[in-house]
Amino acid sequence: MEKMELKKQPATGYERLTILKTEFVEIVRCHWKADAESELHSHLGSHCSTLIESGEFENFEERGFKQEISRKSVNDSFYIPSSSRHKMKCVSVAGTTLHFYTPALLTAQNDLFQARKSSEVADLELKLQSQGLKFEDLVKLTRLIQQNSVSTESVMFMNQLFAGHIPEAQLADELISRTRSTLATYEASPIYTEIEIEVTQALGQLLGWSTQDIEGLSVPGGSAANFMALHCARQKAFPDYKKLGLRYLPALKVYCSDQAHYSVRKACVALGFGEDSLVTIATDSEGRMLPSALAQRIDIDVKNNFYPLCVIATAGTTVMGSFDPIGNLSVICQKNNVWLHVDGAWGGPIIFSKTDRDLISGIEHADSFTFDAHKLLGANLTSSLFITRHRRILLEANDVSGADYLFHEQGDFLDRGKLSWQCGRKPDSLALWLIWKSYGTDGLQMFVDRLLHLQKLLVSWVQTQPRLKLIHHPEFLNVCVQVARPDGTFTDDWSKIVRKNLIDTNTCMVNYSQIPKGPTFLRLILAHPQLQFDDLKKILVAALNAKIDH
Amino acid sequence: MEKMELKKQPATGYERLTILKTEFVEIVRCHWKADAESELHSHLGSHCSTLIESGEFENFEERGFKQEISRKSVNDSFYIPSSSRHKMKCVSVAGTTLHFYTPALLTAQNDLFQARKSSEVADLELKLQSQGLKFEDLVKLTRLIQQNSVSTESVMFMNQLFAGHIPEAQLADELISRTRSTLATYEASPIYTEIEIEVTQALGQLLGWSTQDIEGLSVPGGSAANFMALHCARQKAFPDYKKLGLRYLPALKVYCSDQAHYSVRKACVALGFGEDSLVTIATDSEGRMLPSALAQRIDIDVKNNFYPLCVIATAGTTVMGSFDPIGNLSVICQKNNVWLHVDGAWGGPIIFSKTDRDLISGIEHADSFTFDAHKLLGANLTSSLFITRHRRILLEANDVSGADYLFHEQGDFLDRGKLSWQCGRKPDSLALWLIWKSYGTDGLQMFVDRLLHLQKLLVSWVQTQPRLKLIHHPEFLNVCVQVARPDGTFTDDWSKIVRKNLIDTNTCMVNYSQIPKGPTFLRLILAHPQLQFDDLKKILVAALNAKIDH
Repeated sequence: MEKMELKKQPATGYERLTILKTEFVEIVRCHWKADAESELHSHLGSHCSTLIESGEFENFEERGFKQEISRKSVNDSFYIPSSSRHKMKCVSVAGTTLHFYTPALLTAQNDLFQARKSSEVADLELKLQSQGLKFEDLVKLTRLIQQNSVSTESVMFMNQLFAGHIPEAQLADELISRTRSTLATYEASPIYTEIEIEVTQALGQLLGWSTQDIEGLSVPGGSAANFMALHCARQKAFPDYKKLGLRYLPALKVYCSDQAHYSVRKACVALGFGEDSLVTIATDSEGRMLPSALAQRIDIDVKNNFYPLCVIATAGTTVMGSFDPIGNLSVICQKNNVWLHVDGAWGGPIIFSKTDRDLISGIEHADSFTFDAHKLLGANLTSSLFITRHRRILLEANDVSGADYLFHEQGDFLDRGKLSWQCGRKPDSLALWLIWKSYGTDGLQMFVDRLLHLQKLLVSWVQTQPRLKLIHHPEFLNVCVQVARPDGTFTDDWSKIVRKNLIDTNTCMVNYSQIPKGPTFLRLILAHPQLQFDDLKKILVAALNAKIDH
Repeated sequence: MEKMELKKQPATGYERLTILKTEFVEIVRCHWKADAESELHSHLGSHCSTLIESGEFENFEERGFKQEISRKSVNDSFYIPSSSRHKMKCVSVAGTTLHFYTPALLTAQNDLFQARKSSEVADLELKLQSQGLKFEDLVKLTRLIQQNSVSTESVMFMNQLFAGHIPEAQLADELISRTRSTLATYEASPIYTEIEIEVTQALGQLLGWSTQDIEGLSVPGGSAANFMALHCARQKAFPDYKKLGLRYLPALKVYCSDQAHYSVRKACVALGFGEDSLVTIATDSEGRMLPSALAQRIDIDVKNNFYPLCVIATAGTTVMGSFDPIGNLSVICQKNNVWLHVDGAWGGPIIFSKTDRDLISGIEHADSFTFDAHKLLGANLTSSLFITRHRRILLEANDVSGADYLFHEQGDFLDRGKLSWQCGRKPDSLALWLIWKSYGTDGLQMFVDRLLHLQKLLVSWVQTQPRLKLIHHPEFLNVCVQVARPDGTFTDDWSKIVRKNLIDTNTCMVNYSQIPKGPTFLRLILAHPQLQFDDLKKILVAALNAKIDH
C-alpha cells in the first residue's frame, strides 16, 4: 500500500499516527499545531481523501477549498479529494485531520474516460484456453483491466447516477469477500440477517412508517425493487393469484409517469402483465406526474373494466431529477384502492435532507419504496433495498414449499430466503449499514444537503452564462444544461458533440440526454462525495471552450 | 498483511521470492533443494494455501497429504490448506512451491461454526444512530462481525453448496471493488462486456452449441437464471405475449422433477403462471426424473388443452446430487415442441469432467442452461450465468423502449442492459473468467475430477462402516449418509441430533436432510477446493463418536 509522504516537515510541525491498516484502507491521523503547513501528494495513483476532524485549515491550492472549508459538512467535518497536489495550513490553535488511503492499481492517469476495447490493449488476452496461467500473469491481466477502465472514482466522472469511491464501501466489499456468506438462512448469517433487518427498519421509520409494519430486504438493483413492488401489489390485491396465476384475474393496469425508469416496463413484461398493462401519465414542464391526468385515466380504465393495480411514483427521475407529487398521488390511490410504490432509486436519500425533504412529502402514505444506496450514498453496486409497510406481504408473495432441505427451524422472518425469489444472496445491505454507522443520520443529512447546496450555487452560475441554457428548474441533483455553439446559437446536436469532445480529451465524462424531438443537452449529476463547486465550473467552462472542427 | 514465518531455515535450504503483493493476496515462491524441510505455520489467522508447482514433497503431518500428493491435480499441481501446522519435505532433486496468503481478520479460531447473534457479541451495536462513528470504531465493528460469522473457508464447512476461499475470487472482488462499474452499457464497461461475452461463449461451446447461436449473461443467482429460462421460453412460444400479457395465452404448464430446486416454483409465481402451472414429475430411487412419467403427463395435459411450455431438468439436485436423463428428456421435448432448460447451478461444472461428463449427455439439445460459478468453482456469491442457444431471445424477451437516456449508439448485443430485466449490474462474470484463466479448461477438468475421485474413495469407506448407511448411490459430489446410534440401531432423528452436536462442538458444519416421512441423514458436500479424504473421514468419525446425552 502506498504511504503518505510528507516531504517538508515544518518546524511548527504536526504528528502522524497510523490509526489502522487493513487490506483495503490505510488511515493516518495528523495532529496539527497553529500555522503548520504541508503539501499533500498524489500518492502514486493511490486514492486518498482527507477529513478535517477539528480546527480550521486554509488550502492554497487552486481547487478552491478555502471558501468551502468553513462550511461544516460530512460528520461535522469535510472530505477533500487529494488526488492532485495541494497544500494545507492549520490556521486555528490546533487541528486534527484523518487521511484515508485506498489502494489503486491505476497508472494511466492521463486516460481517465476513454475506456478501451480489449483489442486496443496490448497483452490483454480475453480468450479462455486449455492451459492455465501463472498467478503473476493473472494479476497482470487485472492491472490491465483496471488501467483501461473508465475512472468512475474521478470527480470529473458524472456519466452514471453514481461516482467516487468511499472507504466505507471498500470496507464492506472487503468484509463480504472475506466472510463469503449467504443470507438465505439465519443459521448461516445471523449478524448479516440482523443488519438487513436494522437497515430496513431504520429506513422505514424515516419514511414515517410504524415499526411493527415495516418489512424489506436487499434486492439485486433498483429494477428488481420496482419489480418486487408490482409483485407484492398483485399478491395483496389477489391472494388467490399465487396458486391460480394471472389468467384468472381481471386485466391489470399499472401507472407511472412518462419520465419513469424503463424498469417499470420491463417488470410489467416479466411479471406477465404485458406492455399493454402499462399506462404512462403526462408530466408538467418540470417532469412531474400530473395528478389530474392520473385520476382521469384511472376513472376511464375502471369504466372499461380494467383493474388499476399500482401507481409507481418516481422520487428523482433519471434525466431531470424530478419528484412526482406523492401526497396528491396518494389521495388518488387511497380513493381507488391502488397500491402506491415510490421509486426512490436515485432521489430516495432526500429523506435525510433538512432543506429539501418536502420534495418527498406524502411518502408516509406510500405502500412501498425503492432505495439504492449505491447511487447517491456511494455504496457498492448493487446495494438496493425494497421496503414496504405491509409486514407479511413479502412472505406471502414469495414463500413456497419445497425448501425443507434449507429452512429448518427458524421463524418466518429470520430465514430471509423466504421473503425473496432469490435463494443465495450476499449481504448487500452491509455497505449502507456501514456508511450510515460512519456518518450517522445527522452526517447523511449534511452529506445530502451539501450537494443540494452545490446545485443551487451551480444553477445561479449557469444563469449568468449567456451560452448555457437550463433545460429545467432543478429540484434535485440533476442539472440539465444546453450548450450554445461558439457563435452563441443553440442548435439541437451541439451538446452531444461537446460531450463527445470532453470524453475524447479526457476532460470529464458527462452523459447527455434529449427532449423528444428537441435539443440534446448535458446532464450533470452531483453525486460524487468529494465534488466541489469549482469542479462543476471547470466542466462547464471546458464545455464552452471545447475545440471542435465544425 | 501477515508474512510467512519460517522458523527453521534448514541447512540444505530453499530460497523465498516474493512474486507479488496486492491488497488481497501475497504470493511467495520457494525454490527447494533435495531434503529441504520446513514447518509451515498458522500465520496468525491469515488464510494460506500452498501449491506444489514442481518436484515431489513429503508431508509428515497427520492430515495425510502424503498419499494424495503423488496424484497430479489442479493445474498439474496441488493445493494444500495450511491453516494448521504441518511439515513439508522436498524428496526430489529440486522443487518449487507457491504460497498464497489471503489476509483474514479471524481470531476466534475455536469458534468456527457457532455463528452468534449480535446480542451475544459484546460491543457489537447494530442500531443505526444520529451520531456517526470514528472510522477506527467502524473497523472494530467489521472485525467483530467477521470473528462471529460462520467460517465458510474451513474444510470442515459443508453446510452450503459452496466452501472455501480461493485467491482468484479474492482478486475478482478486489478488481470489481476498485473499478466500481456497471455492465449496462458498452461505453462504460467495454472490457467487462467482452468478458461476459467470452465466458458465455466458452461455456456454450462446451455444451456443444454453435458459436453463432450462443447468448447469455450474468444474473443474480441460480434462481434468477431459472426464472430467465421460463421468461425466454414464454417469449419464444408466444411472440405477441410481451405486448398482450398472459391473459391472452392458453394455460401454461411447466415441468420439473420432485427433487428440483424450489426456485422453479418461485419463478412460476413471479412470472404470473401461478403454482398450479407447475407439474412435479416422479423420480427414481436415485432422484432422477422418470422420462416415461414426463411423457405421460404431457400427453394428458395436451388432451386437457394445457400448453406444455418448458421442462426444467436438473443437473445435480440439491439433496442427492442427481442428474436427470437429459438425452431422454430432450427427445420428449422435441416431440412436443417444449423448451428444455437444464438447471446446472450445482452440477453444471460436470461439463469439465473427463471421467463423468456423460452424466450430462444430451445437454447439446437443451435450449438453455443455468451455471453457478460460486458453488463448486469457488467464485464470489453470486456468479451465476444464464445461457441459451437462441441468440436473439434474451433481447426479444427483455428489451423495451424508454431507455434512450442510457443506450445511445451501440449495437443490440453490446449494450447488455438490453438483454436483462436489470439495469445497473456489476461484472459478476469476472470471477469465473479469472478462475478459468488461472486453471485453464484442463485445470478445471482436474479440479472437478479430483473431487469426484474423492467421492468414490469416500463411498467405498462408508460401505465398510456398519454404523453408516448410504441413502443413495452418489453420482456427483453429494454423499448422503445416515448415522446409527452408538448401539448400532438406525433411528429417524439420530443424524439430525448428531449434526447439531458437531456444530455445537465446533467440529464441522454439515447440513442434514430428510426423506419424506423417513429418516434424517447427513448431506456431505464435496466442494472445498482443498478438501482431502482425511477431512471427510474425520467428519464421519466425529459423527460416529459424537458424545450425546440420549
